[in-house]
Amino acid sequence: MPDSHPSEVLKVTTGPLPSSRKIHIGGTLFPDLRVAMREIDLTASAKEPPFRVYDTSGPYTDPAVTTDIRRGLPALRRQWIAARNDTDVCEGRTPRPEDNGLAAGEISPVPLFDRADRRILRGKPGRAVTQMAYARAGIVTPEMEYVAIRENLGRAKLAEKRQTDGDSFGASLPDYVTAEFVRDEIAKGRAIIPANINHPETEPMIIGRNFLVKINANIGNSIVTSSVAEEVEKLIWAVRWGSDTVMDLSTGQNIHTIREWIIRNTPVPIGTVPIYQALEKVDGKAEELSWEIFRDTLIEQAEQGVDYFTIHAGVRLAHVPLTARRVTGIVSRGGSIMAKWCLAHHRENFLYEHFEETCEILKSYDIAFSLGDGLRPGSNADANDAAQFAELETLGELTQIAWKHDVQVMIEGPGHVPMHKIKENVDKQLALCGEAPFYTLGPLVTDIAPGYDHITSAIGAAMIGWFGTAMLCYVTPKEHLGLPDRDDVKTGVITYKIAAHAADLAKGHPAARLQDDALSRARFEFRWKDQFNLSLDADTAEKFHDQTMPADGAKLAHFCSMCGPKFCAMKISQEVRDDAAAKGMEEKSAEFLATGAEIYLPAS
Amino acid sequence: MPDSHPSEVLKVTTGPLPSSRKIHIGGTLFPDLRVAMREIDLTASAKEPPFRVYDTSGPYTDPAVTTDIRRGLPALRRQWIAARNDTDVCEGRTPRPEDNGLAAGEISPVPLFDRADRRILRGKPGRAVTQMAYARAGIVTPEMEYVAIRENLGRAKLAEKRQTDGDSFGASLPDYVTAEFVRDEIAKGRAIIPANINHPETEPMIIGRNFLVKINANIGNSIVTSSVAEEVEKLIWAVRWGSDTVMDLSTGQNIHTIREWIIRNTPVPIGTVPIYQALEKVDGKAEELSWEIFRDTLIEQAEQGVDYFTIHAGVRLAHVPLTARRVTGIVSRGGSIMAKWCLAHHRENFLYEHFEETCEILKSYDIAFSLGDGLRPGSNADANDAAQFAELETLGELTQIAWKHDVQVMIEGPGHVPMHKIKENVDKQLALCGEAPFYTLGPLVTDIAPGYDHITSAIGAAMIGWFGTAMLCYVTPKEHLGLPDRDDVKTGVITYKIAAHAADLAKGHPAARLQDDALSRARFEFRWKDQFNLSLDADTAEKFHDQTMPADGAKLAHFCSMCGPKFCAMKISQEVRDDAAAKGMEEKSAEFLATGAEIYLPAS
Repeated sequence: MPDSHPSEVLKVTTGPLPSSRKIHIGGTLFPDLRVAMREIDLTASAKEPPFRVYDTSGPYTDPAVTTDIRRGLPALRRQWIAARNDTDVCEGRTPRPEDNGLAAGEISPVPLFDRADRRILRGKPGRAVTQMAYARAGIVTPEMEYVAIRENLGRAKLAEKRQTDGDSFGASLPDYVTAEFVRDEIAKGRAIIPANINHPETEPMIIGRNFLVKINANIGNSIVTSSVAEEVEKLIWAVRWGSDTVMDLSTGQNIHTIREWIIRNTPVPIGTVPIYQALEKVDGKAEELSWEIFRDTLIEQAEQGVDYFTIHAGVRLAHVPLTARRVTGIVSRGGSIMAKWCLAHHRENFLYEHFEETCEILKSYDIAFSLGDGLRPGSNADANDAAQFAELETLGELTQIAWKHDVQVMIEGPGHVPMHKIKENVDKQLALCGEAPFYTLGPLVTDIAPGYDHITSAIGAAMIGWFGTAMLCYVTPKEHLGLPDRDDVKTGVITYKIAAHAADLAKGHPAARLQDDALSRARFEFRWKDQFNLSLDADTAEKFHDQTMPADGAKLAHFCSMCGPKFCAMKISQEVRDDAAAKGMEEKSAEFLATGAEIYLPAS
Repeated sequence: MPDSHPSEVLKVTTGPLPSSRKIHIGGTLFPDLRVAMREIDLTASAKEPPFRVYDTSGPYTDPAVTTDIRRGLPALRRQWIAARNDTDVCEGRTPRPEDNGLAAGEISPVPLFDRADRRILRGKPGRAVTQMAYARAGIVTPEMEYVAIRENLGRAKLAEKRQTDGDSFGASLPDYVTAEFVRDEIAKGRAIIPANINHPETEPMIIGRNFLVKINANIGNSIVTSSVAEEVEKLIWAVRWGSDTVMDLSTGQNIHTIREWIIRNTPVPIGTVPIYQALEKVDGKAEELSWEIFRDTLIEQAEQGVDYFTIHAGVRLAHVPLTARRVTGIVSRGGSIMAKWCLAHHRENFLYEHFEETCEILKSYDIAFSLGDGLRPGSNADANDAAQFAELETLGELTQIAWKHDVQVMIEGPGHVPMHKIKENVDKQLALCGEAPFYTLGPLVTDIAPGYDHITSAIGAAMIGWFGTAMLCYVTPKEHLGLPDRDDVKTGVITYKIAAHAADLAKGHPAARLQDDALSRARFEFRWKDQFNLSLDADTAEKFHDQTMPADGAKLAHFCSMCGPKFCAMKISQEVRDDAAAKGMEEKSAEFLATGAEIYLPAS
């Protein structure tokens, strides 16, 4: 890295979360695995072991690791990939000025990431080097065991702790996730591990209905604003708070260079929408797009290590007129670009026509499809309409083609949908797309709250997650209004962690309620610090508490600022419990129930 | 008002919302009615009439009215009440120092509100002066016509505009609300108009499953913090953003005096939890509470004009032991106070035993019951348990007693409930409580996000509203952590307006989607100002937009900061639409559909 490198690029957030330690769990099939998790230490009075949580934050929260974004993260998966012996090192495509939106000879002010010894891999000719291909061949990969351990949070006997009672709408959540279960779900196309062979830095994670619900954060510069420093920090910030994948939706200049910085420094899979960069290469003129330019962009991004591509191959020429009477037309950028191309040429979408060739490319790097919903509704008025479901049917057809090539697939979903129309989206997606994982944006359950669309969409996201969506794409408070800043990214991520966790609880995930119960016990016992530390955002919880009762002593208080000591329900309730114990009230309770106090009406 | 009055008490927020005017609609049965609404003016290019919205903000947003909180609001209903000729002016109870938590002779620093010519009314002996009594007698009151007009937003032919298609789970939303429909719903106990005869300042509103879903904001000082100035401003601030009722949950000193300021200055019904003040009168010792002290507090607050009382009469002695094994015991303040009293005396709850006498009091002022759920769950672990539903059954029994006395009733509900257990709450409440309106707090769908509980609870609130809850009690970001400040109150109110509106949409309220569609049209046509002004919080929407694109010109831009001009989906989509029109694509669309393009799978 040249010394002239702007120092602000280096400023990223590191260090552990409050009261937390990074731990690593070893594998059984692959003893060298070190699956990262977080343990939260509780106060001594809790008399409880440290609480273990899923951890997306990578080495940035591990004080034992010195990170340096100029060097990127360690290549965790390099040996696993090499050991499969099905890839070749290749020279790769030579980056060009237009990759960064520059004229020939123009020099970008953005510094290059120094790839040093990083080489470009490609599957040997004709080979599908995908997790799906291995799964179908009966092979359990290190990636599969990694995610199995990760999903269990290391608990060997989760089944014994099962205490939930959800309604899973047909999902089959196992009490204990085995590597074989992971393999089987991937073989069936019901789950994916996005893991480009050129992105060995990822800590494997799985997206599927029978696993924990995941979330995605979008970042990316636009033509209007942003810089490398900001985007890399947003990335690290997003995974610190729990984002499972990150999409780089950059559309301005220097997107090739910025993407390199992002991929080399991220522990989570990265998704992109390649048509955005392709459009830059034709100076924003949709009608000048071509398969050749698009193909070249796919190779460019594949070699950098993008883990999944949003591709709007389902926007067929015949679907476009179905949007003409909509209140909000086409609101997907990719969808509108392809619709414009189709109309300009009055030809079928070239992404649809070249889908098999696209599969050939993706299988050579293990890039997953995220089949884009270019015709998703942009308003409640347009939800679940003919255009939307016509495209979904096409996505189902494309899923089968991708699977024929052993390429992993997920399906993108809406958008703006009122509550009573959400479930139909999941039911149709499962039926039309062979249970490929569903990946939805929100949905927003009303259109009238710009500035609060993280909330309007979290309502829909929690519900659609419950019904079966595997990954929820976050929406920030800036949706419809502007680009999210660092605070917005955090708000979006925490809001979507809430939605995903609420969905896990309602589905009956066997481990989901453990954290709720641990926090509730801390709350009831006035262990304020534990309550903060067990929450999704300890910093904010503590800050809000301190705004009313700043003294350190208040964190030991057996009451809080809301009621004060006289009125504290929890305090009185504990007295009630003590009284009850003293008076043998539990026996009385049993008696009350036994003597048939009629507390339920007969079912009508 | 003495001149020495602290000036900060007078500082409240007034003035119209952006681009908005106050309008008044007259009645038919009562031509003198002036039902307040808000109209939002749209930009000329919209070619749309002003958009009319429900307005809870009272005269504070009407530039034609000079408000002065030292004088209070005009007594809108005074003549209506007098005309019924069923009330007497009475001398009333003499306020005592202990009403404000003061020792005898102690002077409070809080100034008194000057009641001037306000007199205290009470129903003539034995008369139920309640909206329910009138409704059952076949009388349509001015209050009933007022709410009918209000619910329709003045549209005479709403039915013709009906464009929603929700699932109402058995609710019967009429296309057009008549005063007779209102009367009938109140007579059946399915809706209430909280309207104490000593609170003539209220603009009547209705709470019931077959009307728009309402929201409540809680304010109130505690022993730890707060002042008159803050509380009155919080009240006016809460109704400015859309709160339909406000509960004063004060628990510190001077609560009698502060309550007077609040009631005299509020255009919405005020609810309280009288046991809080009663407990102050016995210096916080629950076991020293008695029916006499409670009764005295009811009279005190009835004469001030409180519109509904939360009364925890359902916490029976036999229920208390059912909470002993809970993770979070009893978390309702009122519930824990009564549980403690029951255990201390090992006697039945005196609120339960004196329920008929309480009805006698409430019917003399037309105060509604809000039957408190003292045993609501405080964690997901405790949701829908035996204690909770045992109490609900008792509330059903009490509802029948209240109705016997012509007293209006609503039923309070949880709390903390995971998504899959929400509907059971509504189903049981409707069955056990004879369809009396349900009034729920959240529910929070997970316990792990203190600092974000407005969001965890909005998910549950939207769903429970959809299933049939009539009014949603807000939760602010400070829940579990501290007292809400002015910003938290606004965040809570807007969040709950979202939940309530999402519920209206999903229920299929015939007018609900009009605002979504108007805003979506503005969004699609790049009418930025209209998009802001049609939203729940125009100030925040505009502020967020300006953070990325501050120039005034940007508000005319046919793109936004998120994508920039090249990538704007809306812009491209409009071009697609223009193209399509030029090429007769709508015909092609019809053709596509007519020739049987199979876009739906056969129903399975």
